[in-house]
Amino acid sequence: MKFKTESNIVVAKLDDGEDFFESIERIVKECNISSGIVLSGIGQLKNFELGYFDGKKYVRKTFEKPMELVSMQGSIAGTFHIHCALADEKQNVYGGHLFKGVVGVVNEIVILKLNKIKLKREKDKKTGLKPLKIR
Amino acid sequence: MKFKTESNIVVAKLDDGEDFFESIERIVKECNISSGIVLSGIGQLKNFELGYFDGKKYVRKTFEKPMELVSMQGSIAGTFHIHCALADEKQNVYGGHLFKGVVGVVNEIVILKLNKIKLKREKDKKTGLKPLKIR
Amino acid sequence: MKFKTESNIVVAKLDDGEDFFESIERIVKECNISSGIVLSGIGQLKNFELGYFDGKKYVRKTFEKPMELVSMQGSIAGTFHIHCALADEKQNVYGGHLFKGVVGVVNEIVILKLNKIKLKREKDKKTGLKPLKIR
Repeated sequence: MKFKTESNIVVAKLDDGEDFFESIERIVKECNISSGIVLSGIGQLKNFELGYFDGKKYVRKTFEKPMELVSMQGSIAGTFHIHCALADEKQNVYGGHLFKGVVGVVNEIVILKLNKIKLKREKDKKTGLKPLKIR
Repeated sequence: MKFKTESNIVVAKLDDGEDFFESIERIVKECNISSGIVLSGIGQLKNFELGYFDGKKYVRKTFEKPMELVSMQGSIAGTFHIHCALADEKQNVYGGHLFKGVVGVVNEIVILKLNKIKLKREKDKKTGLKPLKIR
Repeated sequence: MKFKTESNIVVAKLDDGEDFFESIERIVKECNISSGIVLSGIGQLKNFELGYFDGKKYVRKTFEKPMELVSMQGSIAGTFHIHCALADEKQNVYGGHLFKGVVGVVNEIVILKLNKIKLKREKDKKTGLKPLKIR
């Protein structure tokens, strides 16, 4: 894993076999990002878990086979809220809330660090989710 | 709905049940954004309408069931030109030009305000579309 | 094709029938972008080729019919590494590594120019790929 910063932009390259969230958490910690936006993420993911929120709970599904990571967008607010789309060998696309994943070949991730806007999450008693709070 | 700005970045949180375009239009108005880029949009949408331009007209389809909003990209030039991808409970992804939608649970939207580049739309007589003009 | 810059942001409009990569290469050259990020890309593509890396080689497929360009993310490091998602007339989404494409109707592309971070690609003997190097 390697990353560099320029102004409020972080460009990171994750390597094959790395745990996606472990790597991202390390970057966020080392770059001192308490609030941020995931602007872009491409490469491949394998053994990843995607979720769909059915109004009460997340319905989760694990995909073992590597897929092309087609897009990634999300927010960093202490914890991560990341959605992504992935394509299989027939170019069919699957997507949802990313719960976990392992880097396949390489991941190129771009993060925007927020310095003034403060993002937090607080548990919503009704849904059990932790929706974003912007301060 | 809540939003904050930092430099030329706007981070917005839309709440369950809000009309997506009404909320975005209010943000754009209050932030005085005449030209901008939608960098990111995640969460859920319900009762949304997607379109495919067949060369002559938009073929539109309404999806009533909530889906995970997997990605959103687009431009703001007086009017909006927004494309998005959404995933159902089986992680299958649908996408196209977003004509309308209602926020499900939450939407996290990030907008880049352009100050120097001026984006406009002018009707093209051949296609009936209003393609982007950059000045 | 037309483009304008503001700070480190380039907003481009590609026109119907243009070769996608020829246009992007011209923009990158004229804007003197040796390292950059493709933040957004919407519109339509036709006669495009998508790839899936199976661990040894890219499995490629050509799609002739125009599809809505739903998302585009990637890096510029001398060469391009671009992933995108596209939707057909039934809103089904296909995606992967973009090898080639022709602009349908219009493409709106947003690029972030990196000035300090240097992106390069060097051939990996094991995979035959040219993974990103960040300096």
